[in-house]
Amino acid sequence: MTGRIYPFIKVGMTKVNLTPTVVKDEKGIPQLEKNEPVYIYDTSGPFSDPAIEVDLKKGLPRMREQWIIDRDDTELLPEVTSEYGKARLADKSLDSLRFEHIQLPRRAKKGKAITQMAYAKAGIITPEMEYVAIRENMNCESLGVKSHITPEFVRDEIARGRAMLPANINHPESEPMIIGRNFLVKINTNIGNSATTSSIEEEVDKAVWSCKWGGDTLMDLSTGDNIHETREWIVRNCPVPVGTVPIYQALEKVNGKVEDLSWEIYRDTLIEQCEQGVDYFTIHAGIRRHNVHLADSRLCGIVSRGGSIMSKWCLIHDRESFLYEHFDDICDIVAQYDVALSLGDGLRPGCIADANDAAQFAELDTMGELVTRAWDKNVQAFIEGPGHVPMHKIRENMERQIDHCHEAPFYTLGPIVTDIAPGYDHITSAIGATQIAWLGTAMLCYVTPKEHLALPDREDVRTGVVTYKIAAHAADLAKGHPGAQIRDNALSKARFEFRWRDQFHLSLDPERALEYFEAAGHTDGEYCTMCGPNFCAAKLTHDLRKLK
Amino acid sequence: MTGRIYPFIKVGMTKVNLTPTVVKDEKGIPQLEKNEPVYIYDTSGPFSDPAIEVDLKKGLPRMREQWIIDRDDTELLPEVTSEYGKARLADKSLDSLRFEHIQLPRRAKKGKAITQMAYAKAGIITPEMEYVAIRENMNCESLGVKSHITPEFVRDEIARGRAMLPANINHPESEPMIIGRNFLVKINTNIGNSATTSSIEEEVDKAVWSCKWGGDTLMDLSTGDNIHETREWIVRNCPVPVGTVPIYQALEKVNGKVEDLSWEIYRDTLIEQCEQGVDYFTIHAGIRRHNVHLADSRLCGIVSRGGSIMSKWCLIHDRESFLYEHFDDICDIVAQYDVALSLGDGLRPGCIADANDAAQFAELDTMGELVTRAWDKNVQAFIEGPGHVPMHKIRENMERQIDHCHEAPFYTLGPIVTDIAPGYDHITSAIGATQIAWLGTAMLCYVTPKEHLALPDREDVRTGVVTYKIAAHAADLAKGHPGAQIRDNALSKARFEFRWRDQFHLSLDPERALEYFEAAGHTDGEYCTMCGPNFCAAKLTHDLRKLK
Repeated sequence: MTGRIYPFIKVGMTKVNLTPTVVKDEKGIPQLEKNEPVYIYDTSGPFSDPAIEVDLKKGLPRMREQWIIDRDDTELLPEVTSEYGKARLADKSLDSLRFEHIQLPRRAKKGKAITQMAYAKAGIITPEMEYVAIRENMNCESLGVKSHITPEFVRDEIARGRAMLPANINHPESEPMIIGRNFLVKINTNIGNSATTSSIEEEVDKAVWSCKWGGDTLMDLSTGDNIHETREWIVRNCPVPVGTVPIYQALEKVNGKVEDLSWEIYRDTLIEQCEQGVDYFTIHAGIRRHNVHLADSRLCGIVSRGGSIMSKWCLIHDRESFLYEHFDDICDIVAQYDVALSLGDGLRPGCIADANDAAQFAELDTMGELVTRAWDKNVQAFIEGPGHVPMHKIRENMERQIDHCHEAPFYTLGPIVTDIAPGYDHITSAIGATQIAWLGTAMLCYVTPKEHLALPDREDVRTGVVTYKIAAHAADLAKGHPGAQIRDNALSKARFEFRWRDQFHLSLDPERALEYFEAAGHTDGEYCTMCGPNFCAAKLTHDLRKLK
Repeated sequence: MTGRIYPFIKVGMTKVNLTPTVVKDEKGIPQLEKNEPVYIYDTSGPFSDPAIEVDLKKGLPRMREQWIIDRDDTELLPEVTSEYGKARLADKSLDSLRFEHIQLPRRAKKGKAITQMAYAKAGIITPEMEYVAIRENMNCESLGVKSHITPEFVRDEIARGRAMLPANINHPESEPMIIGRNFLVKINTNIGNSATTSSIEEEVDKAVWSCKWGGDTLMDLSTGDNIHETREWIVRNCPVPVGTVPIYQALEKVNGKVEDLSWEIYRDTLIEQCEQGVDYFTIHAGIRRHNVHLADSRLCGIVSRGGSIMSKWCLIHDRESFLYEHFDDICDIVAQYDVALSLGDGLRPGCIADANDAAQFAELDTMGELVTRAWDKNVQAFIEGPGHVPMHKIRENMERQIDHCHEAPFYTLGPIVTDIAPGYDHITSAIGATQIAWLGTAMLCYVTPKEHLALPDREDVRTGVVTYKIAAHAADLAKGHPGAQIRDNALSKARFEFRWRDQFHLSLDPERALEYFEAAGHTDGEYCTMCGPNFCAAKLTHDLRKLK
């Protein structure tokens, strides 16, 4: 579908054509009744566009580049400015690993406010904003469903900070999407290697794979070798916004010695990643020196990697963390690239027993202070949340976040609602995720079956993404998102009418559904071997309707 | 653990012994701190008791038989009394299929009220009631946790109908368990062959398998050949209560012709199954002739097999269903064996669009009328519920059920909260199941990944059961069931202390957890290869605690 304000906008989506319903007329002659096509929100970008041949070595088309150039408030730099970035580029031994077509970085011109929030506050509707307005309204126009989501509404939500649109000017390959509680619930997927496992090829493959299944953003949590080069490959081939946790790479740079971390190293890491095109940074600036002790009495202590690193730093140096002290400096840096901040919950609970405790909520309150400081500098921001929380304690998390963090979007990891199911934590967490998303969480960080046990492989990524698409969509239904139920209804109608292929095409994982169906020896027809003809309720209902 | 009122009671449970925590004293010398063992509710019966060797051909030990004999209010019949049962026994061609050690059936002596509800109303605490009181209080005594669940409380809940204890006197192999919203949330698993698939061996194997993973009751939904013989094998080897839908077998007896169903055939089927030992019957007596048309405007019509059968019968004969008309007769029959009634929701919604509609609620109201009629005859009963319901419509289901059905236990199928994920309906439904169980549903009917696509195989049964154990336990936590969180806390402490084996032994599926852990090449140690030593939050927290 194309834009009205900006006719050059073309929003990719999946169109599912449906076969007609067969109804017999009074004389018993079969007649065909048309079923309208259904559009599905599609995160796979050019990978599913038959008109585009993707070459991973060249990267994706730079769709947003011209939009950015046309705004004439940014400039190409003559070279990368981060020291580390320069050193890596100069290192010939890395040539074999390096992405071949590295572009020069772009940055705001001096004195220019170039974030989507700055434009929104100035009353400007950007192409990115119109893009997401179209994208959020799947099926509404074609089926005549009223929607409150207009480009102006998008602008207004971004201006007030209740939604954010991650869009680093150095990641023009990414398709605009929006995170906010008045929009479709989004999901984030994590990939990343650790010191001992997985290669660049595997990580790029997982990134593309997670987008195929419906991941809305992607966090690269790599901690192993060649983080810099791996990231370049991922960003250049990723059609969705990419997030990172810069402290991980900073720690690698000081050989894992927490005490040696410093603002200078961290600052250079931020610039390095801003110039590569990372769209948002998780920053654990909510940990205050005087709050660290609040986790002492916990059953499971601190389970966030970033949180435990910063807590240790605070204790070793007995001072406020450099992330908190330099928060305004951080904002000044990222504002030049429109990189958003994800305020990391370093003190999130790691088990049911630690949920909603003083440590967690003290950090949340600090994040509420920080988010307004980010907004003052036109930096888009959102707030990370738990973690492990039993069902009856979820509501307090959401209400407190809305209240203390001024309606900034909430982005939660699950929450996991019971600790006793390692191997099934995609499920323990999807239960909590649906609940908290219904209450207003804007984005859910997926959890795979191997959480707590191992890094996810390709199949785990698929399972994790589809599980979280379920949670997000169930919440969209419960919140009454315009048009959300159209897909459910079309699928259920197809199911009831034995239009098996239509049913599968409308499902979150058509391949899996078809695989189960065919493995059972079913064929298309007016019942299936599950119940046999005499016990098929759908068949009986059709018979029954003929009786009247 | 053993009984106090009845010292002969021995309640089986799994005891998980834990390794000690290693803490270093001031001089750096490792000291051991004991971790108390954790008891786990165990549904696997004699199959996991090393003192018992199970021979499927002989069936399980008849634990409750002496308790029943001692009450001296029942009698052994000289032969089976159902016509069909007699015919099957006399059919020599079935000898090869037949369970070898068929016992004579037992029935109430004339004028005796022998149901657990009758005893409860008379103020009698039966051994079954004390058994469940012990069973519900896992860990409470050993760890000194206060619990409201006493034998007297059990009796009182059964007397008022708010809980029920399925215990056919012809199924003395089953271990007592209780279904009610002031107790642990239970889960039911379905097995059963259809006209074209699976053998007796496979079904018995699935029954035992589902008990191993935690199924609290088992419904045999077979519709294929040799239902009678298959059922005998299952009941004789099943340590948990068994439910059926007798209309399925009745329909087989009239060769699938709905119009030929009659009260006489149905009545004989009830007696046949009462004498075999089925513990509860799903009976779709809530469908009234004048309500059938309420489903006309639905997107998916009637999706309950029993519901569509009875609706068709009502329309063909243009009269009230024989189940409704003969409801008092049904109660008189089942009361003689203490078979409970599960009032089936024949008009449950089959898609999101049909949730909470007039057809569904009209039936629920009828069930409210029927349950009091059952109680008047001392018949234990519960109410079946949906189905497909989006998150925001779940609460209305529960509140209306409590109100209109006089607090009779609610037993729901999911509900599934979105229609768009065939292949993942264990997850779509576990989300709704957790929600409705938290609100008060007493038992959840599991859904497997293949729902809507195929009959479950062995692995699907495991996945379905574990998924529903998660839902049930998450609800127990949210409801504050006494001692429910002990297992979570013990597991999380083990996780935090890198006691990997303890963590797995405490989990719902130890085999799966260990499999993922080992496949990733992890070994026991103070971090794992997921994050490596520098990025292990747990390791960092331990370091951090040493800093102080």
